[in-house]
Amino acid sequence: MDGPDIERFGARAEAMLEELAAISEEPDRLTRRFLTPEHKRAAHLVGQWMAEAGMSVAEDALGTVRGHYGREGEAAGSNAVPRLLIGSHIDTVINAGKYDGMLGVVAGILAIEHFRDRNQRFGFAIDVLAFGDEEGSRFPTVLSSSAAVAGAFEDRWLPGLDVDGIALDQAMRDYGLDPQAVAAAALPREEALAYVEVHIEQGPVLEHQDAPLGVVTSIAGQFRTRVTVRGMAGHAGTVPMAMRQDALVAASEMVISAEAIARAHPEAAMVATVGTMKVMPGAANVVPDIVEFVLDLRASSDPPRFKALAEFTHRVEKIAAARGCTVTLETYHDCATAACAPWLQDGFARSLETLGLPAPRLVSGAGHDGQAMSKLTDFAMLFVRCKGGISHNPVEFASVRDMGLAVAALIRFIEDFDPARRH
Amino acid sequence: MDGPDIERFGARAEAMLEELAAISEEPDRLTRRFLTPEHKRAAHLVGQWMAEAGMSVAEDALGTVRGHYGREGEAAGSNAVPRLLIGSHIDTVINAGKYDGMLGVVAGILAIEHFRDRNQRFGFAIDVLAFGDEEGSRFPTVLSSSAAVAGAFEDRWLPGLDVDGIALDQAMRDYGLDPQAVAAAALPREEALAYVEVHIEQGPVLEHQDAPLGVVTSIAGQFRTRVTVRGMAGHAGTVPMAMRQDALVAASEMVISAEAIARAHPEAAMVATVGTMKVMPGAANVVPDIVEFVLDLRASSDPPRFKALAEFTHRVEKIAAARGCTVTLETYHDCATAACAPWLQDGFARSLETLGLPAPRLVSGAGHDGQAMSKLTDFAMLFVRCKGGISHNPVEFASVRDMGLAVAALIRFIEDFDPARRH
Repeated sequence: MDGPDIERFGARAEAMLEELAAISEEPDRLTRRFLTPEHKRAAHLVGQWMAEAGMSVAEDALGTVRGHYGREGEAAGSNAVPRLLIGSHIDTVINAGKYDGMLGVVAGILAIEHFRDRNQRFGFAIDVLAFGDEEGSRFPTVLSSSAAVAGAFEDRWLPGLDVDGIALDQAMRDYGLDPQAVAAAALPREEALAYVEVHIEQGPVLEHQDAPLGVVTSIAGQFRTRVTVRGMAGHAGTVPMAMRQDALVAASEMVISAEAIARAHPEAAMVATVGTMKVMPGAANVVPDIVEFVLDLRASSDPPRFKALAEFTHRVEKIAAARGCTVTLETYHDCATAACAPWLQDGFARSLETLGLPAPRLVSGAGHDGQAMSKLTDFAMLFVRCKGGISHNPVEFASVRDMGLAVAALIRFIEDFDPARRH
Repeated sequence: MDGPDIERFGARAEAMLEELAAISEEPDRLTRRFLTPEHKRAAHLVGQWMAEAGMSVAEDALGTVRGHYGREGEAAGSNAVPRLLIGSHIDTVINAGKYDGMLGVVAGILAIEHFRDRNQRFGFAIDVLAFGDEEGSRFPTVLSSSAAVAGAFEDRWLPGLDVDGIALDQAMRDYGLDPQAVAAAALPREEALAYVEVHIEQGPVLEHQDAPLGVVTSIAGQFRTRVTVRGMAGHAGTVPMAMRQDALVAASEMVISAEAIARAHPEAAMVATVGTMKVMPGAANVVPDIVEFVLDLRASSDPPRFKALAEFTHRVEKIAAARGCTVTLETYHDCATAACAPWLQDGFARSLETLGLPAPRLVSGAGHDGQAMSKLTDFAMLFVRCKGGISHNPVEFASVRDMGLAVAALIRFIEDFDPARRH
């Protein structure tokens, strides 16, 4: 594997992503939600590529395309063998970029193609998985397709409705799938050696560090907490400052407090964001009486995340009390941190070193299928630099060179992969 | 004038306000905008009351009802005589209370009725004025009717449209008025001795000080400044705290800064309010890139108000720069402070003392017809305590007793009024 190989991997990846991006629910932008006809067309294309790369191809009850590359000496048609799982997703957000998810599927296929071309097989099989529900842009679920593979699918998700009132189980049937067969999608634990995923970073860290690739240490745990501050409305001209119970000034102090807490914990890669705020009654000449905002709080591990939320709660209660306001907090989303296995992280780090690349480690602030797959087996992720850290946007961009390096790094990782390193 | 008189004044005022409140554009709440048929009905009722109280009644080009109570020995039909002007307004906001404005008109009428009953006349005439455009709830103008009396009406206001696309001059014609006659509404300066107005406080200061009435020192000057903060959007999970340009955290610091500036100047009765804020793009998982808010800044005199806006501008520019954001400020409203004449303030203070009442002085944070009338003559205001400081709301409330005291105080003020005190 040399320079020209890397160029070729990148060019192939770019062409395949372009072909996938043409399959959209909307004419002028890329939108491909879970279990839509466009999802099915994309899955079919991916299955064709897998077959062309030498894999046997199957589809499970959630529509996940599963390409199987047998181990050394494996009988054709055999399946119950330990395997390395490589995957990502082919669904998108509304008005998406073409790299998010798809790059990881394409990288897996190109790696297998590389091995097939060299008649290279290993002491373990390799499955490439193309999931369909990572973005959660259609049903109330998210990661349901990887959860099914991990044996963590919950039947209560089946009646969940999309915006058109179609339930998940109905959409599965419309797609040609059998909701009764979900359990069969689960992989036995003993067959799964590890799950690895290549994905664009969707953040600015690698670009900032001038590194094409990076090794993920964990997928951040996350709280979403709705904060409601209640004060007293009043005339902006007639209520003296000392007599006010201004809900917005209180909320402003809370926003700053959230930032201060996150900034104090860079070792936990903590981030706190208030992205939405509603000021009521919302007239320029009325002191606000109610302000609602949502705190999004993430960290690389759970103990500091819980500690930070407790500290935030304490601080906002003090802020409210000092201003004659009240505050209520409602945490409606709490997703645990998923740590990447150190032995797999080290495997990616070694593969980057053999390519002469730096191997920075970073936290994933965004969610990924690895969170669901972590319930089945050890997992790790390789991040690819993306321009300006921009994702979920048509201007999302990863360079051909960086994508080529990612495919090469994945190949090196697989060649070096030794299940015995798992403890 | 004794206790029973005060009770009677209050009860009369309450009954008259109730009768006026029944005249509304909407069946279930009080809305009476400038130059509507309901304004005309209310003006007609007020004119009847004025006539019954012994005044000659006229209507000017803006629909202002003008009751004239002649001076001692004044020939009937005479008009070109120096007079004390007493007024307030009979238009309302949408979904109004029944005291705001109307109490001042009713108090003037009850005072004249009291004098007429006693055949009491003075060395000056008294005009009671019922203005129609104090709230500015229909056209882009505000105080146009008092401006006309003060000779400060601007012809450029005439084409201003209401929400239905009706221009002010058309509405005047529909009401039965002549837009060409506006200039004739202006009172010659030599005929105006002073303008005084009784009005509910619309704030909590008098209630807080346990005082039924208070003497206004000035109507606060006011800025309305639109502040736009621009940062950089980003994924709430993937952009580290140190790499953010969060427009909302910057705006939060600006809100707190505005409060700090106002709190530092209680001697100027300074108030700063941010009552409306828009956070964009407005998703919980996106770092905000644009935040817009409006600063409402008022003070009892202009120099500290200008200084405060300059300081706020300086501070927000520093805040924005420190966070890699930019900020623009657009002051779209700048209304000068209108100071109440000390000799008239002292007149009200004396009248309160003779009633055995405290005479606290306070600033009016809200706008009033006195701002326009100050261009014609000296003016002053007497504030009446209102429950909870609430106004522009159906629960607006002033007690019968406090209203009775206000009428009594106005009567004492008039009896004591001596134009020679003016310097």
